[in-house]
Amino acid sequence: MAAVTNGRVLFNSVPTELPEPGKTTVYDTTQTIDLENAPLNGGFLVKTLDLSIDPYMRGRMRGADVKSYVPPFQIGQPLVSHGVGVVLRSENSNVKAGDHVYGMLAHANYTIQKDLSMLQVFENPNNLSWSTFLGVLGMPGKTAFMAWKEYSSAKKGETVFVSTGAGPVGSLVIQLAKIDGLKVIGSAGSDDKVQFMKDIGADVAFNYKTTNIKEVLQKEGPIDIYWDNVGGETLDAALENANLGARFIECGMISGYNSGGAITKSLFHVVSKSISMFGFIVSRLEPKWSKDFFATIPALVAAGEIKHREDVYKGLDKVGDGLLAVQKGTNKAKLIIHVADN
Amino acid sequence: MAAVTNGRVLFNSVPTELPEPGKTTVYDTTQTIDLENAPLNGGFLVKTLDLSIDPYMRGRMRGADVKSYVPPFQIGQPLVSHGVGVVLRSENSNVKAGDHVYGMLAHANYTIQKDLSMLQVFENPNNLSWSTFLGVLGMPGKTAFMAWKEYSSAKKGETVFVSTGAGPVGSLVIQLAKIDGLKVIGSAGSDDKVQFMKDIGADVAFNYKTTNIKEVLQKEGPIDIYWDNVGGETLDAALENANLGARFIECGMISGYNSGGAITKSLFHVVSKSISMFGFIVSRLEPKWSKDFFATIPALVAAGEIKHREDVYKGLDKVGDGLLAVQKGTNKAKLIIHVADN
Repeated sequence: MAAVTNGRVLFNSVPTELPEPGKTTVYDTTQTIDLENAPLNGGFLVKTLDLSIDPYMRGRMRGADVKSYVPPFQIGQPLVSHGVGVVLRSENSNVKAGDHVYGMLAHANYTIQKDLSMLQVFENPNNLSWSTFLGVLGMPGKTAFMAWKEYSSAKKGETVFVSTGAGPVGSLVIQLAKIDGLKVIGSAGSDDKVQFMKDIGADVAFNYKTTNIKEVLQKEGPIDIYWDNVGGETLDAALENANLGARFIECGMISGYNSGGAITKSLFHVVSKSISMFGFIVSRLEPKWSKDFFATIPALVAAGEIKHREDVYKGLDKVGDGLLAVQKGTNKAKLIIHVADN
Repeated sequence: MAAVTNGRVLFNSVPTELPEPGKTTVYDTTQTIDLENAPLNGGFLVKTLDLSIDPYMRGRMRGADVKSYVPPFQIGQPLVSHGVGVVLRSENSNVKAGDHVYGMLAHANYTIQKDLSMLQVFENPNNLSWSTFLGVLGMPGKTAFMAWKEYSSAKKGETVFVSTGAGPVGSLVIQLAKIDGLKVIGSAGSDDKVQFMKDIGADVAFNYKTTNIKEVLQKEGPIDIYWDNVGGETLDAALENANLGARFIECGMISGYNSGGAITKSLFHVVSKSISMFGFIVSRLEPKWSKDFFATIPALVAAGEIKHREDVYKGLDKVGDGLLAVQKGTNKAKLIIHVADN
């Protein structure tokens, strides 16, 4: 068989504000690969099926000299994100052709993997779509579940405010909070997302682009728990309307990712209201909570008792658009790049 | 006996920036009291000995309409703070003449107390000066000890950064951290305070007015624990130089008390470095830690193994100056208003 094109999405330049398709990243079709004969050198060949686009990826689009705990993308090299693939050929005894793998995948149609250090073979007993493992059963779902269990100290009758409540993380937080008997206030950036938050059980759901956040929280609060995905003014509003002893779960601060950092003006309430604030990195919670997660969430998802949505972009050439949409919040739900069918 | 003057310090106007002696507060000598015959109505008469001036008092100098968990001072009424007094007469069976009381006292030479709801009778077995019970053995000492025990998760060999390390809270934190085997970095605003921090064991001590905080922390960090009394730029420097999994103990944010609030620009590190931030109100920690505190700290203070300093202003007419000094940081140590000898 002749070589086929191996499309790739390369990191091309460091953005100063929003990532620009074609400039920050470029779709490249110059590489080819011979799927039957490419040497594996003891490794295995993976065909990419689905890739995840997540807000945190903006933090990796930085110069090689800027330190952080997640390494930067490298100029001229493919992006990397969570993904699902199928193994086409293998010389590794732990992986065989036909296996499905989950983990960090380069943005390319095909990759040759040395070993299983970045990927794991996984089963799909409930026969869910592969992309499910990038959303509610993947990193976003684990983020919501594990940090909620670890930090919320949720008590029945309390009130939680969830920002980006229609996203893959926030929508699971809303459903976990309702299972725990809390009053849930959710915010998102479109009327469609507001409707989805209501559909999954939010008691109060509003569009932050057309509604004053502080007024909603003054009326519906004070809040005992804040799930923060945005930082900045929304965090200030939450601080101002927090209850004594509130817990703030700091999952992300997207309002500052494309503007050099979110400014917080009301942090003094952390002192005056005895607030605990928990930043976290989900991989540090996995050893403790992984078993619980897989024991409860997949079955609830398969039974339709936990709802989730996806916004699927088809083709690697759409990665740039997807990255921009996630930073602007114009994606409708968990953004998936569907690269190939099984 | 004829009536004597009962000097009082009244809250006179809400400050917009720093509190001004004679404007924010006024010293008033128009009231008299007959110490032998003033009716007690079942209560008791207290002569004020020492009063504490603390940074948090700035938060009580606000309009009656601004909500917070500490009530505002009332215009035309005396200030209230932690104090020590001696009972002159009593009609309450739980208190007798000669008893010493500690708790919230109005800023007046004499007060008639209804009951013991704001005060407690206390012993002084080590024969320490009464003002000690307003500093290292009072609210500041409890603040340092109880929050350190509750939140620091200190491990030998870690590094802690203590802001306002020469103050009554910070200086005890430094000594507790050294007892726990940590490397201690302390900051304060004068060379005299820097010397005091070295004297009590700080490994690195610097004057933040003449030294770049970020450069010190870059060189001596990263930090595992930050004891925050100041907020603002110092907090940003600590966030930028924190280790993965750092604990931030949020005791105060004086940098914003007189300017409408401290601005934080680097809060995203809470997410990226998995930082936990703990605001607290010491009264909420007392039930859990009071016994431990009194079992360990008074004896160490009496033995000279824990060091502390006081800056004593003599007379109620100096309260206004004391309030301003504490907000500007020009006090040399724990600020005490010495009102009368025993």
